[in-house]
Amino acid sequence: MAKNDKPYIGIDLGGTNIQAGVLDGKGKLLATDRLKTKADGGEQAVTRRLVKLVEKVLDEAGLKSGDVAGLGIGAPGAVNHKKGIVLSAINLRWTDYPLGKVLKEALGVPVAVDNDVNVGIWGEYMAGAGKGYDDLMGIFVGTGIGGGLVLDGKLFHGVQLTAGEIGHTTLRGDAPLGQRSLENLASRTNIVDQLKRLIESNHPSILTKLADGDLSKIRSRLLAEAFKENDALTHKVIGQAAHYIGVSIANAVTLLSLPCVVVGGGLTEALGDDWISLIRAVFDEYVFPSELSKCKIHASRLGDDAGIIGAALMAKQRLEVE
Amino acid sequence: MAKNDKPYIGIDLGGTNIQAGVLDGKGKLLATDRLKTKADGGEQAVTRRLVKLVEKVLDEAGLKSGDVAGLGIGAPGAVNHKKGIVLSAINLRWTDYPLGKVLKEALGVPVAVDNDVNVGIWGEYMAGAGKGYDDLMGIFVGTGIGGGLVLDGKLFHGVQLTAGEIGHTTLRGDAPLGQRSLENLASRTNIVDQLKRLIESNHPSILTKLADGDLSKIRSRLLAEAFKENDALTHKVIGQAAHYIGVSIANAVTLLSLPCVVVGGGLTEALGDDWISLIRAVFDEYVFPSELSKCKIHASRLGDDAGIIGAALMAKQRLEVE
Repeated sequence: MAKNDKPYIGIDLGGTNIQAGVLDGKGKLLATDRLKTKADGGEQAVTRRLVKLVEKVLDEAGLKSGDVAGLGIGAPGAVNHKKGIVLSAINLRWTDYPLGKVLKEALGVPVAVDNDVNVGIWGEYMAGAGKGYDDLMGIFVGTGIGGGLVLDGKLFHGVQLTAGEIGHTTLRGDAPLGQRSLENLASRTNIVDQLKRLIESNHPSILTKLADGDLSKIRSRLLAEAFKENDALTHKVIGQAAHYIGVSIANAVTLLSLPCVVVGGGLTEALGDDWISLIRAVFDEYVFPSELSKCKIHASRLGDDAGIIGAALMAKQRLEVE
Repeated sequence: MAKNDKPYIGIDLGGTNIQAGVLDGKGKLLATDRLKTKADGGEQAVTRRLVKLVEKVLDEAGLKSGDVAGLGIGAPGAVNHKKGIVLSAINLRWTDYPLGKVLKEALGVPVAVDNDVNVGIWGEYMAGAGKGYDDLMGIFVGTGIGGGLVLDGKLFHGVQLTAGEIGHTTLRGDAPLGQRSLENLASRTNIVDQLKRLIESNHPSILTKLADGDLSKIRSRLLAEAFKENDALTHKVIGQAAHYIGVSIANAVTLLSLPCVVVGGGLTEALGDDWISLIRAVFDEYVFPSELSKCKIHASRLGDDAGIIGAALMAKQRLEVE
């Protein structure tokens, strides 16, 4: 097997779950599996679970660690991708953990580490909705709003390695703290909070019924259901969120003259094209110059697999260059 | 004289004036001169004036066109820098004018063309306030607000060649058209309009006296004078503009994790450090993550010469690579 054809392992490390997969040289997933993170156990216990999951998924693919060319992993939080160090991961309560080195020693394969959002965007860029563009912004809407940039065919990290934090850009420049950033205005957390507040102050919504009266149950799928049933309150609040997302994408595209933006995350997967259309209409109104309305806004295509595919492809790209 | 030591000509083509200079291999200006653009005469008449000014400035430097390695020019408006074509310059009323080709034929030297703001930022990056940084945003505050980006040591143009248009990013995402972009909120035009309106509705200001009662006379220098005399109304309106500029810089630095931003333009030159301090304070409050408050915000250093120095250095960089 030529080096370039060897499979790579990809891991998506989250605060709750770890997902892993083996990707062959043609970009096909040979096996995938998952395990609870159990972050409470601390760095070493989580690392042992990572190793266990890798061994399991290799076994499922009928491979040994010597058969793979390397491993890529996306970790939540701030990552020094050059050194393979997780600088700070709040979900995991990790600080300055040399994940790359530790995994390399445990598994005997070269390891590439990056931030989980960057890794997901790399997956969409190489094998998903962003394929074929030179530059790309990815924006993932969930409990928070994350983002990342591919510029000139490479992940762009910036001087503090934090590039892509579109969720923390300001869209209401004269509003108080907590009400001005994109994340404040358009995350799923904010959408649900607003809906709860409105419903509790007696605005009618089908969500009360869908959530069996327990509004804390509202997640992306329920929002999508209410949206598809044309619930007026849900349309209003989701429309506002789409407005701010459209404006923030217009800002990034105006600044960077981008050909493509990929929108992902749980809410996007649940709402689908209707959501993209809402964002697109606002984008077209706000972007400058008008030529930039040629920019494509795509929903992510790899869904839950973006992390493992992106991690494996990131490892392939980085490790083959070295 | 080795090729790398040969001088380059730099031109800053504006709607009103043309400035030109000869820069030697060590980055020293051997001669500079200027001429009215007389844009009314049309493309060919302006080109003849460009050629005349180049011949004049070469003569002043004691050189002939054969002595220089090339010429760089910054043009106002949208430019295809790869083809040397001015796509659209409203001030000049030019559309799709092959300025690079025409100048090359007239002068017999290789020519590099780019947008005037990009060229000024390149000057600051190579020889001014942005020297020594890998990435950089430049923002120029004048009658409008222009900007440009240097990423990984190169001017970043983006797919529609329009990157850097920070003036057209939205900072008040729920305000009507005309009241939401940075340019709407913080250009000198907007500052003067607001001051006029406030003064005309009987808010006292020293500007009435400074402008001899004719508020249409207010320019950057008068604003700076009123600011330095602690005129309360001027401080209020300039403070608001600095607020929005600080927020917009925070947005760009949050998105791109930049190490440096250079702020220029007539207002910056007139107001100096006080203006940068106002912007800096807002920036520090809004940027995310907090590590990014290490980002330097510098006033431009080359002043009026940024365009000619940047154009000559851009030509040097592009033409020596070819």
